[in-house]
Amino acid sequence: MTERQRAAVIGASGYTGAETLRLLAGHDRVEVRAVTANAQAGRQLGELFPHLAPAYPSTMLVRAEDVAWDSIDVAFGCLPHGASEALLGALPAHVRIIDLSADFRFRDPDVYAATYGRAHLNPARSHAAIYGLTEFARPALLRARHETIIACPGCYPTATLLALLPLAERALILADDIIIDAKSGVSGAGRGLQEANLFAEAAEGLHPYAVGAHRHAPEIEQELAQAFGAALRVNFTPHLVPMVRGELVTCHVKTAHGASPDDLRAALVERFADEPFVDVLAPGIAPDTRHVRGTNHCLISVFADRLPGRAIIVAVIDNLVKGSGGQAIQNLNVVAGWPEATGLIHQPLFP
Amino acid sequence: MTERQRAAVIGASGYTGAETLRLLAGHDRVEVRAVTANAQAGRQLGELFPHLAPAYPSTMLVRAEDVAWDSIDVAFGCLPHGASEALLGALPAHVRIIDLSADFRFRDPDVYAATYGRAHLNPARSHAAIYGLTEFARPALLRARHETIIACPGCYPTATLLALLPLAERALILADDIIIDAKSGVSGAGRGLQEANLFAEAAEGLHPYAVGAHRHAPEIEQELAQAFGAALRVNFTPHLVPMVRGELVTCHVKTAHGASPDDLRAALVERFADEPFVDVLAPGIAPDTRHVRGTNHCLISVFADRLPGRAIIVAVIDNLVKGSGGQAIQNLNVVAGWPEATGLIHQPLFP
Amino acid sequence: MTERQRAAVIGASGYTGAETLRLLAGHDRVEVRAVTANAQAGRQLGELFPHLAPAYPSTMLVRAEDVAWDSIDVAFGCLPHGASEALLGALPAHVRIIDLSADFRFRDPDVYAATYGRAHLNPARSHAAIYGLTEFARPALLRARHETIIACPGCYPTATLLALLPLAERALILADDIIIDAKSGVSGAGRGLQEANLFAEAAEGLHPYAVGAHRHAPEIEQELAQAFGAALRVNFTPHLVPMVRGELVTCHVKTAHGASPDDLRAALVERFADEPFVDVLAPGIAPDTRHVRGTNHCLISVFADRLPGRAIIVAVIDNLVKGSGGQAIQNLNVVAGWPEATGLIHQPLFP
Amino acid sequence: MTERQRAAVIGASGYTGAETLRLLAGHDRVEVRAVTANAQAGRQLGELFPHLAPAYPSTMLVRAEDVAWDSIDVAFGCLPHGASEALLGALPAHVRIIDLSADFRFRDPDVYAATYGRAHLNPARSHAAIYGLTEFARPALLRARHETIIACPGCYPTATLLALLPLAERALILADDIIIDAKSGVSGAGRGLQEANLFAEAAEGLHPYAVGAHRHAPEIEQELAQAFGAALRVNFTPHLVPMVRGELVTCHVKTAHGASPDDLRAALVERFADEPFVDVLAPGIAPDTRHVRGTNHCLISVFADRLPGRAIIVAVIDNLVKGSGGQAIQNLNVVAGWPEATGLIHQPLFP
Repeated sequence: MTERQRAAVIGASGYTGAETLRLLAGHDRVEVRAVTANAQAGRQLGELFPHLAPAYPSTMLVRAEDVAWDSIDVAFGCLPHGASEALLGALPAHVRIIDLSADFRFRDPDVYAATYGRAHLNPARSHAAIYGLTEFARPALLRARHETIIACPGCYPTATLLALLPLAERALILADDIIIDAKSGVSGAGRGLQEANLFAEAAEGLHPYAVGAHRHAPEIEQELAQAFGAALRVNFTPHLVPMVRGELVTCHVKTAHGASPDDLRAALVERFADEPFVDVLAPGIAPDTRHVRGTNHCLISVFADRLPGRAIIVAVIDNLVKGSGGQAIQNLNVVAGWPEATGLIHQPLFP
Repeated sequence: MTERQRAAVIGASGYTGAETLRLLAGHDRVEVRAVTANAQAGRQLGELFPHLAPAYPSTMLVRAEDVAWDSIDVAFGCLPHGASEALLGALPAHVRIIDLSADFRFRDPDVYAATYGRAHLNPARSHAAIYGLTEFARPALLRARHETIIACPGCYPTATLLALLPLAERALILADDIIIDAKSGVSGAGRGLQEANLFAEAAEGLHPYAVGAHRHAPEIEQELAQAFGAALRVNFTPHLVPMVRGELVTCHVKTAHGASPDDLRAALVERFADEPFVDVLAPGIAPDTRHVRGTNHCLISVFADRLPGRAIIVAVIDNLVKGSGGQAIQNLNVVAGWPEATGLIHQPLFP
Repeated sequence: MTERQRAAVIGASGYTGAETLRLLAGHDRVEVRAVTANAQAGRQLGELFPHLAPAYPSTMLVRAEDVAWDSIDVAFGCLPHGASEALLGALPAHVRIIDLSADFRFRDPDVYAATYGRAHLNPARSHAAIYGLTEFARPALLRARHETIIACPGCYPTATLLALLPLAERALILADDIIIDAKSGVSGAGRGLQEANLFAEAAEGLHPYAVGAHRHAPEIEQELAQAFGAALRVNFTPHLVPMVRGELVTCHVKTAHGASPDDLRAALVERFADEPFVDVLAPGIAPDTRHVRGTNHCLISVFADRLPGRAIIVAVIDNLVKGSGGQAIQNLNVVAGWPEATGLIHQPLFP
Repeated sequence: MTERQRAAVIGASGYTGAETLRLLAGHDRVEVRAVTANAQAGRQLGELFPHLAPAYPSTMLVRAEDVAWDSIDVAFGCLPHGASEALLGALPAHVRIIDLSADFRFRDPDVYAATYGRAHLNPARSHAAIYGLTEFARPALLRARHETIIACPGCYPTATLLALLPLAERALILADDIIIDAKSGVSGAGRGLQEANLFAEAAEGLHPYAVGAHRHAPEIEQELAQAFGAALRVNFTPHLVPMVRGELVTCHVKTAHGASPDDLRAALVERFADEPFVDVLAPGIAPDTRHVRGTNHCLISVFADRLPGRAIIVAVIDNLVKGSGGQAIQNLNVVAGWPEATGLIHQPLFP
């Protein structure tokens, strides 16, 4: 266990990087030594993100190649997919890599290529990477070699897998007909400039997007397949909701072997009993994204369906915390041997 | 065909009544003669709803018993369920009743009692009522006797049934495993004072509600059962979305007899080819509640599912127009023999 | 008076153009013959703005130079400032020009140059243009020659001048210390891609912008100076509000000659008594942008100030209707000799 | 200095109480021993506010009279005005009272009576209370006797006085013609059930309220009068903005003795140089409520006005933190002799 770590945040011009920095500002064992944003190098971090100015009053953005890597222990990769792979693959070996992009999430390079439309440059390293859904990755994280990349899951997969993996592992649900009707706030789309994400377009309305074609579906399938022990496909249907933060997945599943919704709930309660960041709600209580706003928590509920042999499992997270920067820090806490909640204890901001 | 009708709006202190009045203000064949709101009798309509003051500058709210019913041809019932039944059942026989509550939607009084927790007072009249989903009710509307109540569908059932009824009628989907993941803006909850509907609670967040227990499920089942020719149950899972208007249903269905998503789409295109208010979108285009805001339109899309043998059908409406006051007026237009779009031609308010 | 006019909308890829088209779709004396958007030429209008697809099912965007100008009577200029000037100045003389940009609003080319940072190319035509605040421009509009450009006011000036011009003309307020604290929804910023207008940035928060430097201040000053008969400066302090539509100006003024707030209100009531689109509210009633949403109306209230010798005048408009496309059409109605409200009668969309 | 304090939160069914509890959950020197809500006594706190359930898993709401006051050191009064006075006045003398209501803010009982419409029951204790705007109250707080009530300022006065008091004290602005154009999110209206605060009414629109009659005006006047050394009146014009949290005041003032906006800014910079929670922004940077969301910070900017002899000062706070529970805890930290930022260091939640 190290007492402290010196961190670099790579690619801090987007929300993922900003949120990682926001959370690290309250982490007393991490010192942020470098913040990169190649296109914005030379500007103050506080110009791009005024809310970070008080915590990082004199931090300048630099180019990744200008970082003094000798003085960095851990790098948080906050680049878009594609960009992440090349850069992080070239870092000095002593730098622990925790990547928040999609580039190292896939064990099978063919799935990566099919999903992201380009061949992976370093399939071996991607294959060896740890899929960092912390609650399921601890054994791998603890035995990981220093150079193993920790690939943090996508936001939707995080919520979905926390809800479904325990049930898949115990064969309480069937692998076929898993329907994941997902809803996300607009911050999930990032800070990129697109008409659809303008306030005047995204407010006061709702629509599905990337139906049947969202890149998080193969990621969910990879992990569920491992739990079920067989390949599978899922329905994954995301919707854009006029709110900034928050993600909710409504999983419509078939129960297996006569399991009741109560059985499913009991299995989740048992599985997550000792988890600091996953709460299974009392029967009948609906999870609400407002109750995890700004926190690393995931709330899960199980509901009976009107259809016999089915159940509805709903999970919520803050897409920028547990779905992004928070989980990345949670993974660092594990590999560093620190208490897992270090720097991650926040009360939800409600109302 | 009558040239003009004199209307009463019964129960105008809620959004349903206000929206009916808003739409009637632009209907050149209807003259609003009476507006009731028993608890607010004696006040100006414009005090309760300032946006209606320009169109109804001198309209006073009266008690229902104080309406001069002799001069009324048609009554729009905008009362909550339960209240509607007693009042409307007691109106003079010459008054055509178009009810927007749930009280006359069920043919089977036992389903009404089980769903709304009280026995129906007038099961015979409810049984005889027309379920006024206009696109499917025209034959019944045209042959209806004057005293037959026209019961307008709920907002969720309107969107859902427009999407699924044509497919059920043609046996292109299976009756089992119909999953309706629904999302609504907050105006759907009405003007009643509840903490959950306060701005500070309903903004910036998302949650499901009434999971497995929403009252619109039996209504959807009643109509789908008729189309399929057999009783069925559906999964109906509504969510509250931080927007004022708009409703979107994501229907996850199994296709029948090898029908493809394209087959489903073709069937919908054919069924609605001549409908003024239902549009089936081009393949790949996602419906958006913003594109029906303030209008009587329903937009429908069919998507292929990653799961073989399944399809995803998405429909959007403005819950206060096609899902409430607009459809009520559409039904009046049909029974009055007027062009069906009279008073209902609006451009969507976007952005 | 012409029975009908054939219109071109120039620059339809932004909200100004889209809103003009939305309103023209319900105008029974105008036929839209051409819609231009140079960078998008060749695409369907409905691709850029799906909400317009039903009203303009087959309209293609063309380049301005490809319009058959012989068949156009009136052109609505919806280009950004700068672009408008060059293009509209080159149109054939038979085309009536109603411009919604800032390019022809200034009588003094030096003020234009100082405000917009570039010399005007055609100061003579700009000088001759009519400042089209309809309620104050009718005499000029009626006597205008065909080639006189009608320059529609900016959104903020529209609301501000309706509130203050009658008081300035009657010398009921002082010219010094006019403070205009203004608030606008985000659609006022247009469809241009800027981080500040992203949903995740513009939602759930408030900030002032362009304090002391907004380009609408000189425009307000030009018109108030004319009414007061002397040059003046105003405080104009705009704020960006997390809503799509709506604009509210809170004008803090000193009363003159012992005039009371009631006197001010009486003067406004008298001035606007016959105006179809301006309503002075009853004492104590606060104007609300929600009550003009989607309409061409302006609501005005006068309040007593706690400070003696002062009054507070508040006005609201929908920035995209009365502050943009609606007023443009109102001006056309006047010059065409049609009833002024033609195509502009809408009920506010509330809730 | 005490090591720890045992606290009661009185009146926890509203947002003020909930926010105080949210913040206290992260305060390592305060132990919450009792939470009262008379009308909800017997219920779990987590039922009323699910977001507080993780931090207070077993806290029951009790009646104020059922609190074991012997084990309480400090009581946070979170009751509505009127209710606060009677209850807090009757607490045992050993309990330090920090009141967040308006009941003890006024030194002059006549002003209280005129403002709140009822005579004060205990004018002597109110007169002796400390007006707890921490940055200006430290000397009084440090010498306060235990029984002196600390009356926390209203949210609007907090932002306004931080912006204006230093300038008034140094006579850099004139006492006449102070215009405070204020804007608040809807949480400022509390959790009370009123139509105007429903999501469907408060979203997507803007309006002023209580113009010339808001109860925070006399409070601002009381404190400014003390700074100026003479009675004065201010224009205070609040507006309701469709956001949950955040408050912004735009103060339009006349400068004195030839002071420039830069002079005003310099004075504020000097005055707040050592303050942990007040930041004066660089010239030209506009304060934004988003950048204080969830924090106890106040951001202030000074702008030049187009009107000579005037300046515009803008301040933002989170109304529920610095404007409510945060400032209450800041006051406790001072009187307890703890580091003033204890429990109050949070990063703004952006986006």
